[in-house]
Amino acid sequence: MAQKPSIPKGTRDFGPAEMAGRNYIFQVVRSVFQKYGYQCIETPSMENLGTLLGKYGEEGDKLLFRIQNSGEKAALAPEKGLRYDLTVPFARFVVQHQNEISFPFKRYQIQPVWRADRPQKGRYREFYQCDVDVIGSKSLLNELELVQIVDDVFGQMGVRVCIKINNRKILSGLAEVSGQPDKLVDITVAIDKIDKIGIDAVKEELREKGLDEAAIAVIEPVLTLSGTTQEKLTRMRTLLANSETGLKGLEEVETLFGLIAEAGIRQPVELDLSLARGLNYYTGAIFEVKALDFAIGSICGGGRYDDLTGIFGLPNMSGVGISFGADRIFDVLSGLDLFPKDGAASARVLFTNMGEREIAYSLPIAASLRAGGVACEVYPDNTKLKKQFEYADRKGIPYLAIVGDQEVSEGTVTLKNLASGEQRSVPKAELLSCLQQA
Amino acid sequence: MAQKPSIPKGTRDFGPAEMAGRNYIFQVVRSVFQKYGYQCIETPSMENLGTLLGKYGEEGDKLLFRIQNSGEKAALAPEKGLRYDLTVPFARFVVQHQNEISFPFKRYQIQPVWRADRPQKGRYREFYQCDVDVIGSKSLLNELELVQIVDDVFGQMGVRVCIKINNRKILSGLAEVSGQPDKLVDITVAIDKIDKIGIDAVKEELREKGLDEAAIAVIEPVLTLSGTTQEKLTRMRTLLANSETGLKGLEEVETLFGLIAEAGIRQPVELDLSLARGLNYYTGAIFEVKALDFAIGSICGGGRYDDLTGIFGLPNMSGVGISFGADRIFDVLSGLDLFPKDGAASARVLFTNMGEREIAYSLPIAASLRAGGVACEVYPDNTKLKKQFEYADRKGIPYLAIVGDQEVSEGTVTLKNLASGEQRSVPKAELLSCLQQA
Repeated sequence: MAQKPSIPKGTRDFGPAEMAGRNYIFQVVRSVFQKYGYQCIETPSMENLGTLLGKYGEEGDKLLFRIQNSGEKAALAPEKGLRYDLTVPFARFVVQHQNEISFPFKRYQIQPVWRADRPQKGRYREFYQCDVDVIGSKSLLNELELVQIVDDVFGQMGVRVCIKINNRKILSGLAEVSGQPDKLVDITVAIDKIDKIGIDAVKEELREKGLDEAAIAVIEPVLTLSGTTQEKLTRMRTLLANSETGLKGLEEVETLFGLIAEAGIRQPVELDLSLARGLNYYTGAIFEVKALDFAIGSICGGGRYDDLTGIFGLPNMSGVGISFGADRIFDVLSGLDLFPKDGAASARVLFTNMGEREIAYSLPIAASLRAGGVACEVYPDNTKLKKQFEYADRKGIPYLAIVGDQEVSEGTVTLKNLASGEQRSVPKAELLSCLQQA
Repeated sequence: MAQKPSIPKGTRDFGPAEMAGRNYIFQVVRSVFQKYGYQCIETPSMENLGTLLGKYGEEGDKLLFRIQNSGEKAALAPEKGLRYDLTVPFARFVVQHQNEISFPFKRYQIQPVWRADRPQKGRYREFYQCDVDVIGSKSLLNELELVQIVDDVFGQMGVRVCIKINNRKILSGLAEVSGQPDKLVDITVAIDKIDKIGIDAVKEELREKGLDEAAIAVIEPVLTLSGTTQEKLTRMRTLLANSETGLKGLEEVETLFGLIAEAGIRQPVELDLSLARGLNYYTGAIFEVKALDFAIGSICGGGRYDDLTGIFGLPNMSGVGISFGADRIFDVLSGLDLFPKDGAASARVLFTNMGEREIAYSLPIAASLRAGGVACEVYPDNTKLKKQFEYADRKGIPYLAIVGDQEVSEGTVTLKNLASGEQRSVPKAELLSCLQQA
């Protein structure tokens, strides 16, 4: 006998229940993206290795899955790798197809990515990303639109979130006025930890990174900044008065928050000056979304990058985008019991199978239900009714259409509600409207 | 400057117009599968190489894309390959999860597969398959259901097709009665060519394969068989009178055609005794679907395999399934101009951008349109109107909502139909109903 089969470490099978939840998430984000005029593209799973190498840092290069070339010309063919994210393939797509694209180009892309990471809880080697980006426009209306999309997506799902916003220019300004512009990364990495380790430990870390007390004194107020967005902006404007970049960042934030007020965002939006994600490539706005009622990392994030396509030879293309994390959103919806009920049900009704004559009677009725938009199944085998009932129960099918001798001669169907156990006789011509109302 | 980027040979980028068409195809097949109670699963892109090797013949093994192991434990990790089809991963899934599955298990799966084939016109190294299978039931009602699904899918798309049906047992019976049961493959390969090369060449090929004139005389009537299904069955019943297997095949075909008549299939269904696809693994019904109004290979095919999961240690699981070829269906819909109009349009209306005041006025109107289910865009940059018009035109957006000084003070929007050039003033509160009707 063959060994029990298995799948590679860090990959997953998704059965019907999980896929129902995942498809619900994809369908919500997709419908929202479309409502804002974003268009779908797809890129190949494999890219030439040259397209991917050097785009994710040294660590990222190591995490690329490489494909072995095969066949006679293996040695001559360019090496290939599986895509690591959707951003680099998108940049490659824009450059390669620049003459066919009308800019600003608003695209979304929902596809798996692969990373040869050490598998662990919540970290997979294959997972989906849902990216939405606009490229070719510097207007802050694009940032607003992404906030609207986040608001819409989680509003539709019934998930309360906090949308956190920062701006890379403010962080640069802070490094400047502290007299340590070259320590931008160290400063932001330390600030980023404030919630976890507290103010004293952050200051200690800044000291360890070589910042003097004067510099720390400049940065400290940012760590304790509270109040409304306006209050934060006012204090920061004083602090960053001598940094042109910093002031520009504050101006962008102020404009964006003004637009957010005009557009009527329902979920809370917060200026979080400790937000530093993706610092290596973002140049303007930085976004992060956290679920309010469920403890998990960020469920969505992104930002603006002023030169997305320069690496492929098309300079000065500013883009801004966000990425929804399907796996974490799944965990949130599952944990808060927010998935639509019956989402995993395969059909509304199962016709029993009691023999050829009954089946001949049932087939056209089943066809009329389907034509009326009611999903239904006809049990394929003439087995014990108990087995057929169990099948419906295990698949979450709410109704049974029992068809025996009597029903055939009367022109009816016995409709049984599996949850309540109730059953009643329904003339076959009325079954569709009966199920549409139920 | 960087080299112009490219993608690996045999792979494709899909831009917005192509994706609109592809998503239409996926959405139609998905909705039909669901109407019959099939549930979605997904399996990982990569499988352990042991799962894949030996399942597709020697030629298939060579066409597997292998993944290089990386990291410290590379030498110890099992080798992996990209999936070659959806059937073997499905069989692996069923065996691995047999205790969680309620049989008969009706599943569909829409995912890409990879083959290191020599790329050529219409043959790609990455392409989607849309598979629908039921496993764990021998009932011919399953075969009927697949025919119903084919009928529904192409009916919804408006594609006229011919559904061709054969049965492997009939072909086995034919080889038996010709006295050459070991030449089954040679016989069917030759018969399969009748349309292309004609009867004399088929007979010549049979001779070359070592069949004597007596055997050829037995087979010859099959090559010229015409008339109704009943007529064909009657003649074949005489021919296969001495083959139990052959008669069983004829009985299955007769039952299936009886069910097809009861269920009211709208597209033509034909018994095609020369149909031999997938002979290596099919054991019962064989299906193939051809478009009637467009010259292209089969756009859908499948059959029954009596022991799908035996290779993974779970014997006697009979399954039947079909696979829709998204790429060819795309070509058919495109060639016959059957894609829904406006499918690729990103939005119904574009709000122009004439400055901050106008945008502040437009944002809540745009939000109300989206809440009412009308996709719309707000142009992000305050540039020349001509450029904004061109953007709408190139994206196929049918309406412009022009908002300038006058509209803001009047509380209106100037709605311009880009196709007709017509424009009229609409009070902002009426814009939604106006576009819902348009």
